[in-house]
Amino acid sequence: MSTPSLSMYAASIPVFVRALTNLKAILAKGAAHAESRKLDASVLTGDRLYPDMFPLTRQVQVACDTAKNSAARLAGVEAPKHADDERTFPELQARLDKVLVYLRGFEPKQIDGSEDRAIKMPSPGGEVSFRGQDYLFYFALPNLFFHAATAYNILRHDGVELGKMDFLGRP
Amino acid sequence: MSTPSLSMYAASIPVFVRALTNLKAILAKGAAHAESRKLDASVLTGDRLYPDMFPLTRQVQVACDTAKNSAARLAGVEAPKHADDERTFPELQARLDKVLVYLRGFEPKQIDGSEDRAIKMPSPGGEVSFRGQDYLFYFALPNLFFHAATAYNILRHDGVELGKMDFLGRP
Repeated sequence: MSTPSLSMYAASIPVFVRALTNLKAILAKGAAHAESRKLDASVLTGDRLYPDMFPLTRQVQVACDTAKNSAARLAGVEAPKHADDERTFPELQARLDKVLVYLRGFEPKQIDGSEDRAIKMPSPGGEVSFRGQDYLFYFALPNLFFHAATAYNILRHDGVELGKMDFLGRP
Repeated sequence: MSTPSLSMYAASIPVFVRALTNLKAILAKGAAHAESRKLDASVLTGDRLYPDMFPLTRQVQVACDTAKNSAARLAGVEAPKHADDERTFPELQARLDKVLVYLRGFEPKQIDGSEDRAIKMPSPGGEVSFRGQDYLFYFALPNLFFHAATAYNILRHDGVELGKMDFLGRP
């Protein structure tokens, strides 16, 4: 019997892909809600839970960047830059699609073995350094789920019919 | 040189502990906000983002249960039952403390090797079965972060001064 083992790839890329795929479906429900009620969709895409919080557009952009940059940093490659100019549901969906294609291009061997790799990340207080697995579990995953959940919460707060299975997705 | 390796314990227990510790600090800021503004704290603990969403109390209870039950299921042990009768900030903090003590009682050897263990979980549609690592990455972690982020978002929406570092915690 072989010893089971967990890989950095399995703990990152497919988990990011699942989170962004679910976020895409959540946005689709937001767009359909605006359409069926003849709302100006920008009321939803520009909404936020408090005046100094990010609006929905920015929550989606940060979720995308967290997944994209985390994959790149774990693999030790340079991530593509995206302009953060999305304003509409179709533009946000296209941004998610771009990142999903990028994530699916990683091969396990690029990410596996990054458990102890030194990951450097810019932060408001200067560059911070993490061990690969600490970066994944204490920054990348919580930050990605935070922004995806906040996007969900903004739409839910606006009356879009969503349930937690939309956030978790189906296996 | 030894091959780096990622363990199921490292990917679960300390990550759950960090999330619940941060949630405790977030609730402390909520309690201090109510106190300093002479608000009835139950306005915050009972608040929700939409009429048919869970209030703050229930978000905290579900975050606790997700961590507690996930640890127990990965280890193949029975989790203690908690009554879900918390109404106040101190009661919610005590619930979090109880779960933190429980989580800290797990030893790595109880969780390590659970990558491929069959995990059974009750669900509204009947019992569902997951492979250990799929349970951790596609249910336990996203569900825990979802409820912690929603608790944060409820308090943020109510004007409590929180920033994302309160959610992520400091390494």
